[in-house]
Amino acid sequence: MPYYIGDVIKNEEQLIARTPEQFRQTGIDVRIDTRVDRIDPKAGAVLLTDGVAVPYDLLVLGTGTTALMPGIPGEDRQGVFTLKKLADALRIKAWIRELPCRKAIIVGAGFVGMEMSEALRNLGIETSVHHRAKLPVNRWDPELAKAVLAELESHQVRFVTDAEALAVQEGKTHRLRLVTSRGEEEADLILMAVGIGPNTDLARQMGLPLGRTGAVQVNFSQRTGREEVYAVGDCAESFHRVSGRWVNIPLGDIANKQGRVAGANIGGGNALFPGIVGSQSFKVFDLEVAATGLTEREAVEVGFHPAGTLIWGNAIAKSMPDNSKLGLKLIADRATGRLLGAQAVGRKGAVGRINVLAAALWAGMTLDDVGWLDLAYAPPFSGAWDPIHIAAQELRRKI
Amino acid sequence: MPYYIGDVIKNEEQLIARTPEQFRQTGIDVRIDTRVDRIDPKAGAVLLTDGVAVPYDLLVLGTGTTALMPGIPGEDRQGVFTLKKLADALRIKAWIRELPCRKAIIVGAGFVGMEMSEALRNLGIETSVHHRAKLPVNRWDPELAKAVLAELESHQVRFVTDAEALAVQEGKTHRLRLVTSRGEEEADLILMAVGIGPNTDLARQMGLPLGRTGAVQVNFSQRTGREEVYAVGDCAESFHRVSGRWVNIPLGDIANKQGRVAGANIGGGNALFPGIVGSQSFKVFDLEVAATGLTEREAVEVGFHPAGTLIWGNAIAKSMPDNSKLGLKLIADRATGRLLGAQAVGRKGAVGRINVLAAALWAGMTLDDVGWLDLAYAPPFSGAWDPIHIAAQELRRKI
Repeated sequence: MPYYIGDVIKNEEQLIARTPEQFRQTGIDVRIDTRVDRIDPKAGAVLLTDGVAVPYDLLVLGTGTTALMPGIPGEDRQGVFTLKKLADALRIKAWIRELPCRKAIIVGAGFVGMEMSEALRNLGIETSVHHRAKLPVNRWDPELAKAVLAELESHQVRFVTDAEALAVQEGKTHRLRLVTSRGEEEADLILMAVGIGPNTDLARQMGLPLGRTGAVQVNFSQRTGREEVYAVGDCAESFHRVSGRWVNIPLGDIANKQGRVAGANIGGGNALFPGIVGSQSFKVFDLEVAATGLTEREAVEVGFHPAGTLIWGNAIAKSMPDNSKLGLKLIADRATGRLLGAQAVGRKGAVGRINVLAAALWAGMTLDDVGWLDLAYAPPFSGAWDPIHIAAQELRRKI
Repeated sequence: MPYYIGDVIKNEEQLIARTPEQFRQTGIDVRIDTRVDRIDPKAGAVLLTDGVAVPYDLLVLGTGTTALMPGIPGEDRQGVFTLKKLADALRIKAWIRELPCRKAIIVGAGFVGMEMSEALRNLGIETSVHHRAKLPVNRWDPELAKAVLAELESHQVRFVTDAEALAVQEGKTHRLRLVTSRGEEEADLILMAVGIGPNTDLARQMGLPLGRTGAVQVNFSQRTGREEVYAVGDCAESFHRVSGRWVNIPLGDIANKQGRVAGANIGGGNALFPGIVGSQSFKVFDLEVAATGLTEREAVEVGFHPAGTLIWGNAIAKSMPDNSKLGLKLIADRATGRLLGAQAVGRKGAVGRINVLAAALWAGMTLDDVGWLDLAYAPPFSGAWDPIHIAAQELRRKI
């Protein structure tokens, strides 16, 4: 009988509870609210904190990530949150309802910070984002990040630049006070969205090799350093097809795919996870923000000689009533013309373009290919020359 | 001085007139409202109907297509239109305004028929589509074509199946009467949207070889059978990268690309048009309809052994409020697993998926690649498993 140990969320509207009993009927022993103390790979047993030893022949680690805290005084105060698991979201919702919460501070301007600024503003909560850098979303070109900043500001999100969080204190007009290198601000809720790191305690303790990224090393079958132990999802590395390096990009679709590969292999199949190209996206208010492949800095790090170009094109044909501007950046290798990465921001069409370019990266296309791709043109969906063509041909001329 | 001979449209709101004078200032002699009678390739001269001979060193044919008529009695009556050029659209608009037009009949259910049914309904005009087959948009799988039909019907477009147009007569309650194999219907306007064919009279007369498709044969430089004569756009063939055949797919984006290739070569460059994969799309009311690559029938014709699968997936994550269903069909070769074609229909996300699959076709990907493509997942834009993955993995298991 296979075992599943972990915290299975069992409440709130959209979720259909899958109780341990329901699982047991399907032949799976699910143990919720159960902590694993350590794993004994020689004995082939998972040791629970209550002293019980659960034996295994094959083991899958899916320990995920933990949201990082800045490590400042007062960060453990009531009303300071991170957002990683559904349980975190439920706690935040409960806190907002109870107070009620009129004002929120988000520390950090990555995916979670951006998505939560929209969610909080949609609840009518006054929201500030305090960020270490001058612009949000570090991964994107400054010109595209400025479009994200403008979107935040047009929805009355206050953006505080160059702010290093120093302490959380008790507030006067609001519950809490955030002290930063740029001053102080009070709020009823503080969300720490400063990053995440893979949970590798169990893996390390049982002697599994970790990669350069700090996540668990796996091969293309999702096997770890031990033949009988698999690792999947955010705690594990993935092969990046553009850089040729093993990376740790904790995203849900990658976790899903790795889980399927491990499952197929455990079931007697011979599945390989063919890797990733670094595609990612999020929505912030009315803006689509997406990227794939390498940034220029990452490209240099792995030995490419990147050149980039950034254009503002039309998301759909210029003559159409709903047209809006699309910012698209392409990065390619000077020596070979090979596409290395892409970033896009726009009210519509950004994710669609990035997905096409993700397929191009997957195939190892050069700009000569990308500039002539046969896309399904019609005025409601694009111009006859898509921003993809325009950017690729422009960058081709440049290098 | 280069010459341009043809009918340059010079009126209506959105168009900024580019007069022959303006062109002449840029060094181009544009002659509008001018017919070319024939071309004398030995003398290197274009002979106009008014007897003038315009000499050339290099010649570009961009003669386009003509909308076909069914060839039935009365089809030349006032109020019977085709829609190919902007001038046609202006004539139709003028006719609708003058009458006024309360009722319209469209003969044919391809791109033009579908787009015009939306345009006419948006003007409040009662609209019928009479079509030879049982379903609209022959290129799409019957299950997807049914979704298009449902969209037409939900916007009060009457769809008459198996209707062969036989004659156009004078009407009683409306201006005109269409007689078909299925009966009679009256209307103030009849649009013949039964197809188009390449204009090759001049090419044939000057002895240029035509392809199997009836369009002008060209090489990858857009040169015709004569070194000094180029042909581009709807009158010329294109290389289909999936079938390996030369085809004639008259679409604006292909014409644009071929024009750029010919222009670059004439300017002393060495450009090649790398071909197409058959991508196309249109919008009908709230539906995106798109396809790329080969149909099963076309795949068989060129020697593949196709298998297909059709799924209904989620355009965006199932949990999101604006989710809608997306129909996606994939076609692949049984022998090699190579992707051969794709078709999609949905309220959103259909064109985006087809563009990704167009890039996959361009690169010659197999289902093993397509099923694991790294797309930019976020719930507002897709599920963790995109319909592309689901369909590709399903078809992979099937073959």
